[in-house]
Amino acid sequence: MVWDPPVLRLLDQRQLPARVEELVCRTPEEVGEAIRSLAVRGAPAIGMAAAFGLVLGARRIGKTDPDRFRRELQQVADMLAATRPTAVNLFWALRRMMARADALLSAGTEAVVAGLEEEALAIAREDAEVNRRIGLAGADLIRDGDGVLTYCNTGALATAAYGTALGVIRIAHEQGKRFTVYACETRPVLQGARLTAWELLQEGIDGVLITDNMAGHLMQQGRIQMVVVGADRIAANGDTANKIGTYTMAVLARAHGIPFYVASPLSTIDMELASGEAIPIEERNPAEVTHIRGVPVAPEGIRVYNPAFDVTPHAYITGIITEKGIVRPPFTEGLARLFAS
Amino acid sequence: MVWDPPVLRLLDQRQLPARVEELVCRTPEEVGEAIRSLAVRGAPAIGMAAAFGLVLGARRIGKTDPDRFRRELQQVADMLAATRPTAVNLFWALRRMMARADALLSAGTEAVVAGLEEEALAIAREDAEVNRRIGLAGADLIRDGDGVLTYCNTGALATAAYGTALGVIRIAHEQGKRFTVYACETRPVLQGARLTAWELLQEGIDGVLITDNMAGHLMQQGRIQMVVVGADRIAANGDTANKIGTYTMAVLARAHGIPFYVASPLSTIDMELASGEAIPIEERNPAEVTHIRGVPVAPEGIRVYNPAFDVTPHAYITGIITEKGIVRPPFTEGLARLFAS
Repeated sequence: MVWDPPVLRLLDQRQLPARVEELVCRTPEEVGEAIRSLAVRGAPAIGMAAAFGLVLGARRIGKTDPDRFRRELQQVADMLAATRPTAVNLFWALRRMMARADALLSAGTEAVVAGLEEEALAIAREDAEVNRRIGLAGADLIRDGDGVLTYCNTGALATAAYGTALGVIRIAHEQGKRFTVYACETRPVLQGARLTAWELLQEGIDGVLITDNMAGHLMQQGRIQMVVVGADRIAANGDTANKIGTYTMAVLARAHGIPFYVASPLSTIDMELASGEAIPIEERNPAEVTHIRGVPVAPEGIRVYNPAFDVTPHAYITGIITEKGIVRPPFTEGLARLFAS
Repeated sequence: MVWDPPVLRLLDQRQLPARVEELVCRTPEEVGEAIRSLAVRGAPAIGMAAAFGLVLGARRIGKTDPDRFRRELQQVADMLAATRPTAVNLFWALRRMMARADALLSAGTEAVVAGLEEEALAIAREDAEVNRRIGLAGADLIRDGDGVLTYCNTGALATAAYGTALGVIRIAHEQGKRFTVYACETRPVLQGARLTAWELLQEGIDGVLITDNMAGHLMQQGRIQMVVVGADRIAANGDTANKIGTYTMAVLARAHGIPFYVASPLSTIDMELASGEAIPIEERNPAEVTHIRGVPVAPEGIRVYNPAFDVTPHAYITGIITEKGIVRPPFTEGLARLFAS
């Protein structure tokens, strides 16, 4: 993601790995559509893109009276917030941006536009730094010879840099550890096959692609020593919403006595939610299931269920790897302490 | 599958559901290739196809001295047996056919050819009858309002008629029960999406297609009351080899207290194997994972693991539904009793 005023340049993740194609967003609506269509995805990346989308909106509103500016900026923020319901970073980033706007409004709308640009760049810069810290905190968990299972894409494509779960893997690799990463393809959108496999190859990390339904078989054979996944929203008690199928991996890990870690920045933790039950789960287009890269794989007329996320109860989670260290159960206390410190 | 001498006509399952296309096999080698390439699949269907393949071989050998006939017939049987390693019905059918040949050899090779044709037709006829009995034995397990999860394709396409796990579902539907079938798409070859969804639509059974990684989420929500799957080989202790991902479904079912049934004819039970550990697991072409219907979904150069089956230990299985009724734990005793009766 490159902020290149007056445009935001995105790597179009829908085209990967077949084509490395840039998507140029000139308006907040184009950014919104990029988020909705999964051209940009991954909780932290969605937050960043929305922040820059709001900057595009602020620039477009331009010089006008503060009340009108505030009102129109809120409309842009609402439009961006409505693109996807589950990942909390989207709302977190927009709230942070609007707070900055409010703080500067008395200084004039030009100051707000400049301040918003600064804030969006800060969000991106901080995310890269946060990822590095998550990676450092989690890398110790990986030992030479381990098989590490990961899910969906949580790498540089989903964040500002490094990644969350893939950041842990990347830092362990930088530290010279030798281990194998099993990447679940992650149906229906295949973020694992298309994006994680691509990032692993780019980084020279030993990776093996599997279909999601092979995870149990691999664990049964003793090939997996650790599972590490990202998160789209974590409740105050540690319940974690993440890509559909994450819960299945957690149940499998528990049945095989394998530690199951969630790697996530604090910005993904929603302390206002007591538990995961209230996390809204996005249901997406059935065509994502019935068609793969445009090719039909199911008969016309079949009913489809396509939830984009599921919620893993905290009892299945060994630890949450954050930029402030690894939180272990009981999570309600551990997470509260983290936010208080 | 239609025996239409001098050819065997198969519905080419690789093309479904996009195209309903017939594959005409004129030689045992063409039948072998149809099995290897998954044009015909499903443990009972593979056994039947191999039996008819052997008939094509016997007809081609024609009139010759008995020793030479026996030798050449064995070569055809060996070729057919080498097409796929896991499903035991293949070996069972070929053994049964060769026994019939041996019994008739003294009566001349023409008698053998006629006898083999009779035997292959008997295998097909018996499979249809066996499926109906499996369906009747298992249908009682399904109650009005249930959510029934099934895996891979175990229907009319995989057998002579009705199917095994799908036969249970079909008979329950014929009995007027109202329930919903959740069909897992079954990566990598998508037998669930392409074949089971198609059969459910054809039969007017209420079906919902899901990706394999959604099964845990559905169970967590209380939407699944029963899992029923087929089998490729069952050991004497009940350990069951079936399509990759079956073990994952069994672990999930156990974690949610949901009964997990295997529907299978006795011909799939390999009483010579004490446990599932010795069942050979076929590893197939990585392209099945990296390409879907010919379209690449992963970057070139990524390593792939592609086992076609996994083994579900008997401890995860609630019951095995056979043509002689439902066997429940302890399976070693129950299965032995079944074969003795």
